[in-house]
Amino acid sequence: MQLPESIENLVNEFSRLPGIGGKSARRLVFHLLSSSHGQMEQLAMALDEAGKKIIRCARCNSFAETSPCPMCTDPRRDDSLLCVVEKASDVLIFEQSGSFRGRYFVLGGHLSPLDGIGPSDLHIPQLVDLVRSIAPKEVILSMGSGTDAEATAHYIDRVLDEFPVKRTRLARGIPVGHDLEYVDEMTMMRAFESRTKI
Amino acid sequence: MQLPESIENLVNEFSRLPGIGGKSARRLVFHLLSSSHGQMEQLAMALDEAGKKIIRCARCNSFAETSPCPMCTDPRRDDSLLCVVEKASDVLIFEQSGSFRGRYFVLGGHLSPLDGIGPSDLHIPQLVDLVRSIAPKEVILSMGSGTDAEATAHYIDRVLDEFPVKRTRLARGIPVGHDLEYVDEMTMMRAFESRTKI
Repeated sequence: MQLPESIENLVNEFSRLPGIGGKSARRLVFHLLSSSHGQMEQLAMALDEAGKKIIRCARCNSFAETSPCPMCTDPRRDDSLLCVVEKASDVLIFEQSGSFRGRYFVLGGHLSPLDGIGPSDLHIPQLVDLVRSIAPKEVILSMGSGTDAEATAHYIDRVLDEFPVKRTRLARGIPVGHDLEYVDEMTMMRAFESRTKI
Repeated sequence: MQLPESIENLVNEFSRLPGIGGKSARRLVFHLLSSSHGQMEQLAMALDEAGKKIIRCARCNSFAETSPCPMCTDPRRDDSLLCVVEKASDVLIFEQSGSFRGRYFVLGGHLSPLDGIGPSDLHIPQLVDLVRSIAPKEVILSMGSGTDAEATAHYIDRVLDEFPVKRTRLARGIPVGHDLEYVDEMTMMRAFESRTKI
């Protein structure tokens, strides 16, 4: 059976999304086609609107409708702490934990020699400008803990050597709520090395 | 952190889709916002186009760009076999199995007294018209095998009593490639009852 071209097209677009295979894409498309109350039109409109309104904050590189974004201009946030993350969505994860009230900077990824991503593909000059402008006391390099992410953190650590700023990174250890049997050896080793007094 | 309104909106629209929770919706939206080559615009356009072009075939009730649809007008298909399915996406599953070359009819769901879905909510008069018009030799009632779906098949079986047409349903049994240990008791019982000679 040849699906109508416009359905085939839509299935293709959905299956380009991360975690959505051909079968799920078809399921979503048939759901939308069968839905009443214009769910399909509403999704199309929401996409269109976000596509038109959302820009990158020129200061921190987050997605926002204004630049600088509300978080960069919020006077209640602490300029002395700057948290550097890889992706805009990481900011959300930090904010949900409620543990941080400083500023953010979105790097735009991590170094990845195998994928041809070098320092010039990340927003490093913009980060240097921001550090110069707000002069934080501490920069928290909040990359992931993979090899490439660690290399990225080390690279930025060196870049920031010209500023009198403390650089920290997130603690490595056992995830809260996990049993030891599910923890891998590297994490176990790091957790042991960085053990803290009770 | 308050997400920008247009992002929040888009996340809400995605999380209305089946199998997509709040976290996945956020992940999809951030992926689209970060993607280059206008992936977001292309998805919006594909939705818009499908919304405008896709209609229900007046004959079989499938989604198509024309009515009657290409399958209803295909002269190579066999009018003597009519397969009645619940949803438009079920047609696709049949076609992929390659085992059927007759006509289809999409009922639009199954009876569900608990959800207030009665016979008048399904396209039963349209089905009766189709049976009258193409006069098939056999109608295959291809509903699922849940209680409501079985009740629907029985109901339609009675409705078609006025026609001299054979009514069949799909075989119940052990799914191909499954170990017996994963088969539930009802399926096991049906498979035993309908055992076939080797």
